[in-house]
Amino acid sequence: MRVVLVGGTGTVGQAVKQAVSKHYEVVTVGYSRGDYQVDIQDTASIEEMYQKIGAFDALISTVGRVHFGPLSELSADNCALGLQNKLMGQVNLVLLGLKHINDGGSFTLTSGILNEDPIRFGASAAMVNGALNGFVVGSAIEMPRDVRINVVSPTVLTESLESYGPYFVGFESVSAASVANAYLKSVAGLQTGQVYKVW
Amino acid sequence: MRVVLVGGTGTVGQAVKQAVSKHYEVVTVGYSRGDYQVDIQDTASIEEMYQKIGAFDALISTVGRVHFGPLSELSADNCALGLQNKLMGQVNLVLLGLKHINDGGSFTLTSGILNEDPIRFGASAAMVNGALNGFVVGSAIEMPRDVRINVVSPTVLTESLESYGPYFVGFESVSAASVANAYLKSVAGLQTGQVYKVW
Repeated sequence: MRVVLVGGTGTVGQAVKQAVSKHYEVVTVGYSRGDYQVDIQDTASIEEMYQKIGAFDALISTVGRVHFGPLSELSADNCALGLQNKLMGQVNLVLLGLKHINDGGSFTLTSGILNEDPIRFGASAAMVNGALNGFVVGSAIEMPRDVRINVVSPTVLTESLESYGPYFVGFESVSAASVANAYLKSVAGLQTGQVYKVW
Repeated sequence: MRVVLVGGTGTVGQAVKQAVSKHYEVVTVGYSRGDYQVDIQDTASIEEMYQKIGAFDALISTVGRVHFGPLSELSADNCALGLQNKLMGQVNLVLLGLKHINDGGSFTLTSGILNEDPIRFGASAAMVNGALNGFVVGSAIEMPRDVRINVVSPTVLTESLESYGPYFVGFESVSAASVANAYLKSVAGLQTGQVYKVW
């Protein structure tokens, strides 16, 4: 099975690459690194990526940027980052990827815990996470050719506590390896329309 | 208490107006009708609306347009309607309204059932509903001056079965009056960060 991993260089992505490559061929895609490059905010760049990669059986996305900041400073402008990048970037990977993915293939996206267990500065992220979960539930039932779609919703990673820990004080962290297992389960299994919560 | 009702002319809005006006003063806002007008896709129009209305204690939004159509025809372009109108239209009512709402006031938005119980053609709506629920959960904890925020997530209305029934075959409908009660509960009560599911 050939698995396209968009975001194979981040903390989650590296762990996913390690876990998935034990079972399947992994093609990595990054913004500037990886086997192929893509700007997920640019639909032409996504289309070009799919043209170059050719046939594949699964796509995993572990990418997506979103604005963090005080609610009092939240605006249409800074919400746009999460909507255009983490949300529509991943949604467009699916919508454009449907023409290229093999029968019975799968998409696995990334949301996060904050729409259920919110933190200070996280309103925009919570919005985007909820949107991704909703899109996966809503689109799964209309996927053609037995294609599946799931989303992994991780809490803060143990490996990221040094950077993000101050925002997640008191949260139980999970290892990147545990989070990676959820992506692997999505690819290897037969479930669809699932939000895999890793917390 | 003075309640601003954005969308007081729709099926839900009319029922909300009837229920809420038994207890509080209701100011209605529509796109072309109502006591005041607003284009929720235009932040300048929202700001102008708040300037004209003056002090208020609660805002209820029952508005929001979203694209319905086959997943195979879903694109960044037609997803933009729901993101700009139903999602960011309502989010901007909150973000801009925070400067105007009285201490201890409340915002009550509208999402819908489709991110939990999906239907054909509903992927974009499911995405937007999930986003609204996530925003409410994420923003509630950062609201200043004891301001609260909740969202009502209704299933199909009995009164709307003639128009939308074919998409909701087998769904149990609820009366507009029951849905209106959820908005009234949000305004009258003390809860915050809640998704009131009416189904």
